[in-house]
Order: sequence, then structure tokens, then C-alpha cells
Amino acid sequence: MTAEELETLDIAELLSTGDETTLRQFCVGTQPVIIADHVSNLPSEDLRFVLRHASPETRAEVFSHLHPETQLDLVDLLSRDEMISLFTHLPPDDRADLYKRLPDERTDAILPALAQAEREDIRRLTSYEEGTAGSVMTSDYASIPPNLTAEQSIEYLRTIAPDRETIYYAYVVDDQRRLMGFVSLKDIILAPRHRKISEIMHQDMISISVEEDQEKAARKIQKYDLLALPVIDQSEALVGIITHDDAIDVITQEQTEDMEKLMAIAGRHEAGVYMRTSAWGHFRNRSVWVAGLAVLGLASGFIVQNFEGFLLQFAIFAAFMPMLADTGGNTGSQSASLVIRALALNEITPRDAFRVILKEVHVGVYLGILLAALAFGRVMLMGAGSTIPEEYMLIQIAVAIAAALGFQVVSATLIGAMLPLVVARFNKDPAVIASPALTTIVDITGLLIYFYTAQFILKV
Amino acid sequence: MTAEELETLDIAELLSTGDETTLRQFCVGTQPVIIADHVSNLPSEDLRFVLRHASPETRAEVFSHLHPETQLDLVDLLSRDEMISLFTHLPPDDRADLYKRLPDERTDAILPALAQAEREDIRRLTSYEEGTAGSVMTSDYASIPPNLTAEQSIEYLRTIAPDRETIYYAYVVDDQRRLMGFVSLKDIILAPRHRKISEIMHQDMISISVEEDQEKAARKIQKYDLLALPVIDQSEALVGIITHDDAIDVITQEQTEDMEKLMAIAGRHEAGVYMRTSAWGHFRNRSVWVAGLAVLGLASGFIVQNFEGFLLQFAIFAAFMPMLADTGGNTGSQSASLVIRALALNEITPRDAFRVILKEVHVGVYLGILLAALAFGRVMLMGAGSTIPEEYMLIQIAVAIAAALGFQVVSATLIGAMLPLVVARFNKDPAVIASPALTTIVDITGLLIYFYTAQFILKV
Repeated sequence: MTAEELETLDIAELLSTGDETTLRQFCVGTQPVIIADHVSNLPSEDLRFVLRHASPETRAEVFSHLHPETQLDLVDLLSRDEMISLFTHLPPDDRADLYKRLPDERTDAILPALAQAEREDIRRLTSYEEGTAGSVMTSDYASIPPNLTAEQSIEYLRTIAPDRETIYYAYVVDDQRRLMGFVSLKDIILAPRHRKISEIMHQDMISISVEEDQEKAARKIQKYDLLALPVIDQSEALVGIITHDDAIDVITQEQTEDMEKLMAIAGRHEAGVYMRTSAWGHFRNRSVWVAGLAVLGLASGFIVQNFEGFLLQFAIFAAFMPMLADTGGNTGSQSASLVIRALALNEITPRDAFRVILKEVHVGVYLGILLAALAFGRVMLMGAGSTIPEEYMLIQIAVAIAAALGFQVVSATLIGAMLPLVVARFNKDPAVIASPALTTIVDITGLLIYFYTAQFILKV
Repeated sequence: MTAEELETLDIAELLSTGDETTLRQFCVGTQPVIIADHVSNLPSEDLRFVLRHASPETRAEVFSHLHPETQLDLVDLLSRDEMISLFTHLPPDDRADLYKRLPDERTDAILPALAQAEREDIRRLTSYEEGTAGSVMTSDYASIPPNLTAEQSIEYLRTIAPDRETIYYAYVVDDQRRLMGFVSLKDIILAPRHRKISEIMHQDMISISVEEDQEKAARKIQKYDLLALPVIDQSEALVGIITHDDAIDVITQEQTEDMEKLMAIAGRHEAGVYMRTSAWGHFRNRSVWVAGLAVLGLASGFIVQNFEGFLLQFAIFAAFMPMLADTGGNTGSQSASLVIRALALNEITPRDAFRVILKEVHVGVYLGILLAALAFGRVMLMGAGSTIPEEYMLIQIAVAIAAALGFQVVSATLIGAMLPLVVARFNKDPAVIASPALTTIVDITGLLIYFYTAQFILKV
């Protein structure tokens, strides 16, 4: 269908009037990804009815573009035969993903009806741990014999194209399936007709190990502007490829995860599920850390209680506690999130710790001086209304509060930068240095700095 | 060069021994993006020396994979003739980016030496505002006449391939350059030899307007798994394409920006420049908001001062102020960042405000009950050591603090969800509802809730 026809298309109306001719036309003459776009919000029953008008190949391709939850709802309605057809036609990576999400009784019913090679493929693709390169790769790559000429290669790719995720990159492997090189279809088209693949192929290749982190794979695709990245196992045999579209999804996914971790939100960190997650689900994801931190916050309560006598004497110090807490939390979170981001983009590694800390001390001192000056001004302006002991002058109080805030800012900036580096050093995700956790930590250090500095300067 | 040869390659050693044969072999037999990877950290002088061994085409391609700052350092060393050669061979989008960054005296020297078409292309590509689809597109797309057969098309694409960013998608335009359809090279290869392009091409096309946000373009590429997205102007004429690799870069860029805005960091939000930014630069980016918020924080100081009498009577309330501030900030930031992320991924729009708020009230009430219960327990446990007026029982204090915290959590959750929606409603970037700004706001509302609830329950 043309773009204009699609714009005026109302699937719900077609369904209510029973206009199957237009439905068939829609399902045959439209790209699967655009069909998916138009039907994704239909009730599962209607979705199934519409897709019956498409060929098994198109149906499977539309299916693979639907949201995982929509997929599961639809699968619930399918008969065993429809499921077998779907499993036969789905791209291997989407098939493996669906397999993992289905209950055992469904998969047990389908598995025996699939070909041996397909069963084996499912078993292999589902065996890699979530989050690894292996878990996002597909096994439908194009490999090509090195002795073909450029002209023969085009013929060869034509015959295998219908089953491959991409034919724009073709991989050359030896008899142990070890990766020897790759050619792009552009290389083949530009080469003289009788030039052999072995002469055209690139041997300077970027690949990734099947056990590596999926984000590392995505960042390689980004860095080298690849259409697909070959994935190899321990014996250097080619086992699959990760394509550019999977790389974008992985990056979006990982960034949702980083942001949620940074806000101390637990859970599976799936992208695009805000509305689909129930209030209760949100509550569980958000409460774990927040409640934990509230308990950890006991410490700051104890500190304040410990200085109750001091506060009763100098009530003005209570008025500046919220600012102390906020400013420390803000500056610490800023430096933590910058360091976490730089680590995520591979701009720095834990080995750069010294240079990072040097830079942050530098920034912290500037920020500390600025904020101390602001605090000094505030105390001098606002303090006039406060009751302070007769033997003290307001300026002494102002100096004490400004100095304490300055120290707090420097220490919060440093702590914010150091914690992610330490976590990364132990090969954990630095994003767990959640901004709320950091805020609670620098609150505790901040209150200690605050009261001790004040007592020292005021000689209490 | 093969992967093994590249692994043992030491460019610095080649330079010191003057081994130009190996240098030439490296520059001729290696993919440009991999050359860029190996030379990107060399001093500019050495970089220039190495690249002299490459062809002008390879040199330009290597150049386009270097970091923008490295590009500028290198360009500083180039003669006028070298610059002209570089400008002639760079891909149009990279050429336009470099042009924008060069000082006028450099561009004035080169421009007259370029062909009329190239000058015109630079003028056009640099005319779009930063952040729009137009500013990231390239003009090197492949267009194809509709009357060619599949067989002729391959020949045709062969002739234009060397100059095009991609030949895997080819666009069909009418005589006003209006977009009529597109074919992929896979479609062409799979089609019967004598089938015409006009019969193969897809008319259900995804495109984007030149003025649209670059992130919207990147999200379309992601959603529809595209290799390239055609960009059209107001008269629906095709003016360029955005490729999959640019989409990944835009998404990384936008996410760095969102995270930095969320942490109230100002500046240009460029990805991957943590180390390159000076301490003074970091200070400027981070201080603007933090200092502004410290000033806004005056309000919370005033509130506390206003209740100084109450705090002198009930010092225990001071001990729970840090927890009140932290918990409000944490829960508010969580809901703000979830809503901001859902808006960024187009999962929700401001029109969903009512449903979002309903959900957040729900989550907020759950969180409020949990945290109030925790606070109640804490006061009962910790409060024993505090001095409270004789006429009150500890349990009354505990109820007052728990109730205040519960209200604070519900209101912070709601404020956190609503502010980004309001900002998005006015077509501004919701990420400006920075977590630190939100923390300061909910601190103010929180303290008011705290003291008024306490006074109401304790009947002071």
C-alpha cells in the first residue's frame, strides 16, 4: 500500500465491516514492520484475525516486530499448528527470545514438531546468559565460500538471501568455521566480475566473544559503524552475528538501566514499559532501595540527636541543615553521574582513577569556594532574626557554616567520583552508585563535617 | 592487513625506525575505520605523516572517524592544498560538520577552490539548526530511475557506489525530486532480472521532515529497523538521508544530555568529553544550577527559622529533618526520571497525564505507607533518648512524624511526575526537571508539610 492509503486506513473499521479484500491487500502489499505498527494496539483476537490474511513468512516477521507482551497475549490464542508455523518462520534470535518466555507446557508441545536443526538452534541460542553477546545474536548470517568470483557471489547470495537476517555482510570461514574474513555486498558489486572473494575479503576484522557483555558488542558496532558484528566462541568459530538494529535496542536498554539504577530503582530495567508496569510493580521496584536508605538514614538521625545540645544552643544551625544536605547530595550526584557516564562510554577505565580524582578535587575546590561564599552571605543576611548566644557574633557563625559547607562540597564531590571507580574496579556496574544512595552517604559524612567544623570554629 | 598483523603493529615504532614500507602497507591494506582506531592517539604531526601514505579517499575516510578535537588539531597543520583535497573527499555530512567548526579565515581560503556543487552542498547542509534532522543528514544518498530493470539497477548502483554513503537503500524520486518509493539492494537481488524498479519499490515509506528533532529521526530508525531514513523538505522533495550509524550516535548523544540535565549539569552535553573538559569547564557547567538551587534553598532555611520556637521545644523533629529531605528527594526523583524516560522513548505523551498521575498517586500511597511505618518504628526506637516536653507521649511524636513523612512521600511522588509532563506540554525538554531542582522544590513543600502536620497533630 502507498503511504497515503496507509494514512487513511482504519483497521478497526475494516474489521467491523468485514472488508477482507482490503485486509488482504494490506497484509500482502505492506512492509511487515509497518503492518506491525498498524496492528500493535488491536485486541489479541483481532490481531490474530488480521494476521491470518498474511503469508506465514510475513506473519512471522510482523510478529517479531510486536512488543514482547503483545506477542505473549497473541501466542495464548494460537493453536499448536499455528505455533509450529510461527516457530518455523521466526528469525532465530526472536524465536529463541519467545521460547525463553513461553511456559514449559507450550514449548514441550511444539518442540518435537520442529526439524532437528531448528531444535538444536533454539537450544544453542537460549543457552547464553542474559546480557551477553550470545543472548542477542542471531544464527542467520550469510557465509560465503572464498573461491567464488564476484559475479558468482551475487548469484550465491541471491539463493540464500530469503533466509538471512542480512546479506550486506557475508563471512568467510574455514572448515572448522573459524572466521577468515568478510566482504560487504558493496565490495562484491564494486569488484571486477572475475575477482575471487578470497582476494576481495577484509582480513582486518572486528569480532566479539560470545560471553562478552552485550553493551560492549553494541559499542563496537557504534564505534566501527558496522551493519553487523560477528560473534565467535572460544575456539574462534563463527556462531552468529549481532545486527545494527539490535545494537540500538541494546544501547537504549542499557541506558534505561543506567538511569534507573542511578535513581535507585530496582527491577528488570526494561525500556518502554512504564505504562505496562502495574502500580504495585512500580512500588516494589522503587521501595527496596528507598526503604533501605531510610533505614541507613538512621545514622544521620543519630548524629543530629547526638548534637541536640549544640542545636538547642545554636538553633540557627538547624536552619542550614537542609541546604547542607541538598548541596552535598547535588554536587556528589553530579560527579558520580559524570564518572558513570564516562565509564559507560569507555572514555575512562578504573586505571584512570588518579587523573579523575585530581580533576574532581580541582572542581570540588572551585565549587566549595563558591558555595561557601554564598552560604556566608546567606547567614549574614538571614541570621539577624535568629537567636544566638550572647557571647558569639553573627560573623563567627557565618564563618563556621561557610567553612563546613565548603568542606562538605569538596568531600561529596570526591566521594561521588571515587565510589563508581571503586565499583568498576571490581567489575560491577558503576551505575549501582545510585544518586539516592550517594545522597544518604554524603548526608552522614556531611553532618559529621558540619557539627565538628562548627564546634571547632566556635570552640564549643 | 590481517587481524593478527594489526595486533602486533606498533605505529610509534614504525615512525621511530622510519619503516615507510610497512606504513604504506598499513594505510593501503586496512579498513579506514581501523586505521583511525590505531592512529587516533598519535600527536598531530605524526598523524599527518602516517596519513600521507594513504590515498586521498582513504585519508578523508580515516579523518571522518577521528574525534572532532583531533580533527581540528590535525587541520591546523594542513596546507591549503591538503585542506582542499580533504574537503573534496570527505562525506558531505562530515564536511559540513568540519566547516561549521573551522574559523572563517580557513574556510574563506578553501571555499573558492571547491566546485560550485560542493560549495552549494556545504551551504545547504550547514543551514539547518543544530539538533534537527537536517543537521545530521548526508546528501550522498543513492537515487534510482524507476524504469530500470533489476539487472540494470545493479549495474547502475555499481557506477554510483563509490560516492554514496550507502547503496543498500536506493530512492525513487519524480522530476520535482518528490519521494515516490524506495528499494533495498536485497529487493533488487531477489527480484526477477527483468522486473522494473517501479514494480519492486516500496511505496509505504517512513520519512522525516528536515526541521524535525534529530532524536525523533533516530527513534524512527530504531523503531522500523532501518538502514537509512529519507529526509524531506516542505515541498516533500528528498534532500538527504540519515544513516543507522548516525542514529546510534544521536541516541548516545541525547542520552548523555538527558542524564546530565537530570543532574542539573549545564553546558553543551557532548558525549565522551569528560577527560577533555577542563576542571574550570566542569566547574562552570556544574555550578550554575547548584548555586542557583542553593539560593532557592534560602526558602527552606526561612521555613526552618520560622519554626525555630517549635524546634527548641521539640528538638527531636530536627533529628528527622535529614530523613524527610532525603526520602522526599529520592521518591520524587524516581518518579520524575521514570516519566522523563517514558516521554523520551515516546511511550507516553503529555496527553496521558491523567493516567500517569493516577498511577503515581497509587505508587505514592504505597510508598508513603511503607515509609511512614518505618519512620514510626524509628521514632519509637530512637526517640527514647530525646528530651520531649512532659505533657506529650513519645507515641504522639511518632504518629506526627510518620504522618508528615507519609504526606511528604505522596506529594513528592506526584510533583516529580507532574513537573516533566507540564514541561513537555509546553514543548520543552522534560529532562530540565533536574533531580537536584526537584529535590530543592520538594524540600520546601516537605518542610511545610512536616511542620504543619506536626503542629496539627500535637495541637501546638
